[in-house]
Amino acid sequence: MKTSKEYYEKLKSMKPNVYIGGEVVKRDDARLKPGINVISLTYDLATNPKFEKLLTATSHLTGEKINRFTNIHHSVDDLLKKQEMTRTLCRMCGGCIQRCMGIDAMNALSAVTYGVDQRFGTDYNKRYLKYLQWFQKNDIAANCAQTDVKGDRSKRPHEQKDPDMYLRVVERRKDGIVVRGAKAHNTIAGYAEEIIVTPTRFLTPEEKDWAVAFAIPADWDNVHLVCRVTNPRERKKLDAPISHVGDVESLTIFDDTFIPNDRIFLNGEVEAAGILALLFALFHRHSYTGCKPAIGDITMGYTALVAEYNGVEDAKHVQAKLADLISTTELVYASGIAAAYTSTKDASGTYIPNTVYCNVGRRHAGINTYHEAEILADIAGGLAATLPYEEDFYNPKVGPLLNKYIMRKADVPAENIHRCYRAIGDAICSGLAGVMQIAGVHGGGSPVMEEIAILKQYDIKQRKEIAKYLSGIRKDMPV
Amino acid sequence: MKTSKEYYEKLKSMKPNVYIGGEVVKRDDARLKPGINVISLTYDLATNPKFEKLLTATSHLTGEKINRFTNIHHSVDDLLKKQEMTRTLCRMCGGCIQRCMGIDAMNALSAVTYGVDQRFGTDYNKRYLKYLQWFQKNDIAANCAQTDVKGDRSKRPHEQKDPDMYLRVVERRKDGIVVRGAKAHNTIAGYAEEIIVTPTRFLTPEEKDWAVAFAIPADWDNVHLVCRVTNPRERKKLDAPISHVGDVESLTIFDDTFIPNDRIFLNGEVEAAGILALLFALFHRHSYTGCKPAIGDITMGYTALVAEYNGVEDAKHVQAKLADLISTTELVYASGIAAAYTSTKDASGTYIPNTVYCNVGRRHAGINTYHEAEILADIAGGLAATLPYEEDFYNPKVGPLLNKYIMRKADVPAENIHRCYRAIGDAICSGLAGVMQIAGVHGGGSPVMEEIAILKQYDIKQRKEIAKYLSGIRKDMPV
Amino acid sequence: MKTSKEYYEKLKSMKPNVYIGGEVVKRDDARLKPGINVISLTYDLATNPKFEKLLTATSHLTGEKINRFTNIHHSVDDLLKKQEMTRTLCRMCGGCIQRCMGIDAMNALSAVTYGVDQRFGTDYNKRYLKYLQWFQKNDIAANCAQTDVKGDRSKRPHEQKDPDMYLRVVERRKDGIVVRGAKAHNTIAGYAEEIIVTPTRFLTPEEKDWAVAFAIPADWDNVHLVCRVTNPRERKKLDAPISHVGDVESLTIFDDTFIPNDRIFLNGEVEAAGILALLFALFHRHSYTGCKPAIGDITMGYTALVAEYNGVEDAKHVQAKLADLISTTELVYASGIAAAYTSTKDASGTYIPNTVYCNVGRRHAGINTYHEAEILADIAGGLAATLPYEEDFYNPKVGPLLNKYIMRKADVPAENIHRCYRAIGDAICSGLAGVMQIAGVHGGGSPVMEEIAILKQYDIKQRKEIAKYLSGIRKDMPV
Amino acid sequence: MKTSKEYYEKLKSMKPNVYIGGEVVKRDDARLKPGINVISLTYDLATNPKFEKLLTATSHLTGEKINRFTNIHHSVDDLLKKQEMTRTLCRMCGGCIQRCMGIDAMNALSAVTYGVDQRFGTDYNKRYLKYLQWFQKNDIAANCAQTDVKGDRSKRPHEQKDPDMYLRVVERRKDGIVVRGAKAHNTIAGYAEEIIVTPTRFLTPEEKDWAVAFAIPADWDNVHLVCRVTNPRERKKLDAPISHVGDVESLTIFDDTFIPNDRIFLNGEVEAAGILALLFALFHRHSYTGCKPAIGDITMGYTALVAEYNGVEDAKHVQAKLADLISTTELVYASGIAAAYTSTKDASGTYIPNTVYCNVGRRHAGINTYHEAEILADIAGGLAATLPYEEDFYNPKVGPLLNKYIMRKADVPAENIHRCYRAIGDAICSGLAGVMQIAGVHGGGSPVMEEIAILKQYDIKQRKEIAKYLSGIRKDMPV
Repeated sequence: MKTSKEYYEKLKSMKPNVYIGGEVVKRDDARLKPGINVISLTYDLATNPKFEKLLTATSHLTGEKINRFTNIHHSVDDLLKKQEMTRTLCRMCGGCIQRCMGIDAMNALSAVTYGVDQRFGTDYNKRYLKYLQWFQKNDIAANCAQTDVKGDRSKRPHEQKDPDMYLRVVERRKDGIVVRGAKAHNTIAGYAEEIIVTPTRFLTPEEKDWAVAFAIPADWDNVHLVCRVTNPRERKKLDAPISHVGDVESLTIFDDTFIPNDRIFLNGEVEAAGILALLFALFHRHSYTGCKPAIGDITMGYTALVAEYNGVEDAKHVQAKLADLISTTELVYASGIAAAYTSTKDASGTYIPNTVYCNVGRRHAGINTYHEAEILADIAGGLAATLPYEEDFYNPKVGPLLNKYIMRKADVPAENIHRCYRAIGDAICSGLAGVMQIAGVHGGGSPVMEEIAILKQYDIKQRKEIAKYLSGIRKDMPV
Repeated sequence: MKTSKEYYEKLKSMKPNVYIGGEVVKRDDARLKPGINVISLTYDLATNPKFEKLLTATSHLTGEKINRFTNIHHSVDDLLKKQEMTRTLCRMCGGCIQRCMGIDAMNALSAVTYGVDQRFGTDYNKRYLKYLQWFQKNDIAANCAQTDVKGDRSKRPHEQKDPDMYLRVVERRKDGIVVRGAKAHNTIAGYAEEIIVTPTRFLTPEEKDWAVAFAIPADWDNVHLVCRVTNPRERKKLDAPISHVGDVESLTIFDDTFIPNDRIFLNGEVEAAGILALLFALFHRHSYTGCKPAIGDITMGYTALVAEYNGVEDAKHVQAKLADLISTTELVYASGIAAAYTSTKDASGTYIPNTVYCNVGRRHAGINTYHEAEILADIAGGLAATLPYEEDFYNPKVGPLLNKYIMRKADVPAENIHRCYRAIGDAICSGLAGVMQIAGVHGGGSPVMEEIAILKQYDIKQRKEIAKYLSGIRKDMPV
Repeated sequence: MKTSKEYYEKLKSMKPNVYIGGEVVKRDDARLKPGINVISLTYDLATNPKFEKLLTATSHLTGEKINRFTNIHHSVDDLLKKQEMTRTLCRMCGGCIQRCMGIDAMNALSAVTYGVDQRFGTDYNKRYLKYLQWFQKNDIAANCAQTDVKGDRSKRPHEQKDPDMYLRVVERRKDGIVVRGAKAHNTIAGYAEEIIVTPTRFLTPEEKDWAVAFAIPADWDNVHLVCRVTNPRERKKLDAPISHVGDVESLTIFDDTFIPNDRIFLNGEVEAAGILALLFALFHRHSYTGCKPAIGDITMGYTALVAEYNGVEDAKHVQAKLADLISTTELVYASGIAAAYTSTKDASGTYIPNTVYCNVGRRHAGINTYHEAEILADIAGGLAATLPYEEDFYNPKVGPLLNKYIMRKADVPAENIHRCYRAIGDAICSGLAGVMQIAGVHGGGSPVMEEIAILKQYDIKQRKEIAKYLSGIRKDMPV
Repeated sequence: MKTSKEYYEKLKSMKPNVYIGGEVVKRDDARLKPGINVISLTYDLATNPKFEKLLTATSHLTGEKINRFTNIHHSVDDLLKKQEMTRTLCRMCGGCIQRCMGIDAMNALSAVTYGVDQRFGTDYNKRYLKYLQWFQKNDIAANCAQTDVKGDRSKRPHEQKDPDMYLRVVERRKDGIVVRGAKAHNTIAGYAEEIIVTPTRFLTPEEKDWAVAFAIPADWDNVHLVCRVTNPRERKKLDAPISHVGDVESLTIFDDTFIPNDRIFLNGEVEAAGILALLFALFHRHSYTGCKPAIGDITMGYTALVAEYNGVEDAKHVQAKLADLISTTELVYASGIAAAYTSTKDASGTYIPNTVYCNVGRRHAGINTYHEAEILADIAGGLAATLPYEEDFYNPKVGPLLNKYIMRKADVPAENIHRCYRAIGDAICSGLAGVMQIAGVHGGGSPVMEEIAILKQYDIKQRKEIAKYLSGIRKDMPV
């Protein structure tokens, strides 16, 4: 396993292909640091005795101790631990832990490469297992680039005016392929070591060129990471963990990029493209049943704290809103537990969480995202939006007055109230808050995508048979 | 195990103390039949090979095969099976299976009598175990009478102008006690064999007389069952399973009733009254994570069927509403799975489901009850409320015209459409529908009661510590 | 103006063509009485000094004093008074006043017959005015039969396998036409004097036969009124206004019915069919901005009363729910005021309420219907569903006990509590409650129909231009 | 009437008492410019022929033409025009027009100073009218400072440990008073010419010192404006109106500030403090029925535009969401129309909008604020949060690629899509978005404040009487 220092050294050694604000920057650019801090936590806490048991696992390939973010789930307990680890780490960084997508993609590839080989006689799984062993040994932080830019939403990939609107193979060579396209909304890509690419949807027979999956180093030739950074406002005096974490989203452009054979995990098998897309989404939605409850924990923490400071924690309407936050949080978490408990073992040995429970859980989190922010805004009041600048609290003239007038309950120091409101401002009144809200709706698939996934799987027909039985349209009892 | 015939013979042998519409009736009164049919299903299907495995268990006392409705949960699997059995049976009877409350009360008593004995040196558990063995052997259908009539809601039991507003001990004798009071909303009581009485709330030291639990035959002296019957409209031609089930609610009056010692399971130990109240509620809410999903199954079955008949099943808004129904249904079921999976073994050996998951699940069901009816009403349209009488469909003049004008898709016979709408009318446009909706909100405890239970158990303080850590108010990481 | 006695005499004189439960009945059948009582109120109160000013108007044809239910709106104030009258009367009968649809249809015909004549040189308006004069003079209670049975919802009228699925002209004679078809969900038809028929949707050029509007006496030859009666449970002791009102819905079958020329108001002008359909709906939705607030008044009245009796009226959550009921009620009413205030004068002189405000108001009422019932159920508690029979309260043995145990606050007599809960049971736990709920969703057009009406009218393009301006896509300010 | 240039000159001439980021700045500080641009619009458009009629009025004092933002409402039409002006201007600046609070305060003072004089024989109204004449003539842009910082929310003003938690009179002199305290959430204060101070709540007899209202120049001695600036991200290439407007909120500290007699409008009359507080809130909530619909217009504009660009505008779920946005928007606007139409003329001649309609309208806007953002986020998708920096689109290497991959429908230029998403990012994914959301909940009073105002005014008793009549508890009809 790696240390965060080694991780950072690795980043510094990478070729500059990150664009921020019109310029190529190196990975030690200060704007990337808050994002890097998030990932560093996944290395640092894995050796912290309090977290170690949760954050490490045993490789099924080598039997060695590995970071759980590189583990392939081989039991119900593996899935439950992944869920719990995600919640724990998201709580500790105050938001998205960002490293889940890499391992979610690896688990999806574990099952799909095996299945494709069985069906088509290919050897993707062998390549994959070799890659996995290296991945585990080197404790890799990876991005998964799935969502294509999609162009005209009313057209399929092969119908687009510009065929590059979905990433595709533009050349096939003996030693590999050349791909072109762009993947959007790639969290972590700017400070990931590897980028794993999967298709974004089901494909038709004429879309062989779009049925492609592979992995490459993030600084690979002809890959451009155009990054949008959203960090919290910098603190000058009131340093806090929440002010050291940030989000970086990449539009990842594959500008006629060569992919060598040993890094290719799907290449033309259109039948498997959609399955891989869905399976990555499924593992990722199971991860959401861990991370969204953490956001709930944090939101209810701020809500309860500010209510306590304002002297209204026991008010009935505050209690009702806390109960509402708890209910959303724990229903989502419960759905993840149920998904793990009813998971199935794939032919490859990988445990696949239950589709329906993952999707109802992720959907419930998604449709409550804005509502959770609304509750915190409601209880915190306007000061979350109108809190004066930190510096004014230290101005000799108005500083003491601000500290006088921010007081609430006599036994809570002004600085605590100040800290509490500044953190809430970061949480619901900042650019980062906007990113988190939109990610809460769309990350890992919007609620409407979960509805589609649910409807595809669910046995509605059986329910109609029950209705027919009860109303006397069919005579025998359906079971 | 008993047959439904034996159950019915037993009912017929009981002393008449059931009041309906101003008169005392025997238990073979036709108005009770639909309710009795529901309970009969729990006997009949226990020997049906398709259901047997789910509906039977092995007694931990005798090792004998018993009806699962008399089983004390001794494993995670017991809890999961109870949940699944409940869903399955509710689907088959088209509503509440009604027998759960008896076994939920027995499980609560299993833990509480044991705990009270440990603490106070009493022998309630011995009495209870003897009673349980008889209960299992005789495959008893029992009611649990918990909710007192409560009088002035702003006053505690001992503060009421009329102290009988909560059932209490009015006399203590050597061979037993005499109790007075009334218990409300007692489903099944009118055709139960036994009535199990538990306290309804936490009590204070001066409320010893109200801290009482016991079980008696339903036709015991000085017990009056004042019953409100709600059956579906009778069918003359279009016989259907849904038209044979009904609901009977009893206001059960204890009119200075003597309870012999061997049937008393709590008597004055105020410290345990609230625990018993909550624990029964907890087991019962876990049962709700089984029955409410069945109501969801049925509602979505009718919704999908009527949409199919109307030719709109694939319409986007219909699909979205089905996805909404599925989500509510499966989130509630998932919470029950999670509650079972994270259950804990009590000192008595009884498995106690997780409080938070049971309560968030029951609450979610409760706050969606009316919304589910609304969806079915929305998709079915006005005909659910305006369908002409059954007899008019058989009138020689207008009957053929009604059958002509009820047609939708050419390949669906008029009778099927007729049956479908008549069943939907029963489901959302009838007195029984009203009872089911109100029970969906209040049965087993209203959503506000679940919120209170959640807030009591939940570690909000820990979430505030997370908020303090993230905002820099406390320095070390809370785990 | 007519008295309710004269109205009832008229009903008794009519030919029997009402079917109930498989038989033809006369209009003095007891089952129709509760519905007749509702309409009688519109006659009785028109001469009651407290209501007279609101319930009467001046005919623009004759200058005579008329019942406002026969008035054509000729000012903003007319529309406002109609809205206020509707709310007032619905409060007094505890539900739908049922007579609005007749006058809504007459107002729609006022504008459309005039417009059609202007465009096509026909003389429908002359016929209409003659009919109107008779209608006003005889103070007619009329039904409007609009909704066709529609058959396969995925097909247009002329595409149906059975062309009668939408009412159509099957024969054209010199002296009139013969029509065939059926109209569904016709409230009041069973005790209306006249039936006014309008098309139900926009039509295409090949659908001339379906573009037909007319009025006939309700007992006209070859018209069958197949009625579904929903009355509250009969009271034996606790007589109350709420127990004397009911709802009757007719499936009205036109079995090759001859319509004489002077009663025909549209015949083949497909261009006007949709306009007439929409305009009736518009006037009717404006009526809903009067009646739905009355349902809100009643619901909040019961909610506040039962909360008071239970001693919890001042509880925060009760107050919040009352505020919620008030908000829905008054937003809907405000939308009706705004619709009247921004109404436009049609070429015929008829005032047409604003489409957008009528539709957002009706939609808001519709999407809150079940929610309002839920609030009352929530505050009233389970007793609304489990209240024993009236007769049991008068049984010598259990009656006194029931009166003892129903007590809440010491100063509220048992009978008041009993009455309050019995009324709430009628309101949310009865067949009539189901009808009211489904009517609340679908009556006058379901929320989805209002959305379609809104989207058709609303200037979304202008809002896009604002967006373009603000984002710099267009340079000049759109006004 | 003034020009925006004159307004800006005035600002530049004012004494520096604005604090931003720890320093005192002059009013020409670049960070204040976006806010100043908003106010400038109210001057510029008043002379623009397209807007003039709406934005000007006639002074009831002098008969001269004045900016409507200085007008006292003397008719229903005045209130309707104020509402319409507010919606129009908010649309044109893409958010809050900020100048309403000054005129809302002036209208409240118009009624209250008159009423206080009538009751107490004081001469506040004379002072006020003199001030008003100067205010109209000089076309003053004013802030209203109402909300006190409030300290411990569980204590009244006179119970606070620090009595300054509510602004109060600390000294009474012959020529005026000295006040101390701080007012929070003061939009516009940093570039207002005047600050009008009103009490924030009802007061008790012992709280005379807190019953104070007055107006002073914004740069008055011993007034500190501690400002928090929230501007949109600066644009380098894609200039747009939306990028020139911003929000500045002041915590306004009265540091033993002297107020001369002629600027004092309330001083010790505790009976009037709450009335003034409520009346300002009422006028301000009526203003919200104009501004919130504008936010709705803008949100639906962006939603429809991005849906059009993505080729999904006609999708059913998009249409449903647009209908939802329209409904909220127009229900709120309708409530403002109804409030104006049913306004009452005060003894002073000022027209007071209807309390219930203003409050249900403002509440409906408030509880839908986050939901509106959610809809836009839902339809826009993740790119609103992950759009690369503007500069990257002009980088020679990745710029052309970004423009290639941002394409949607072939006929929409990349720049338009880019502009559209950048504007949406500003609208829902920025610090300013957070401020707007929190202001949408709390500005002018949170939904819970509206509920309190509604409950205070609403005749719930009458609704209970209706319930009593319908259920037979009272015999006569309540009217």
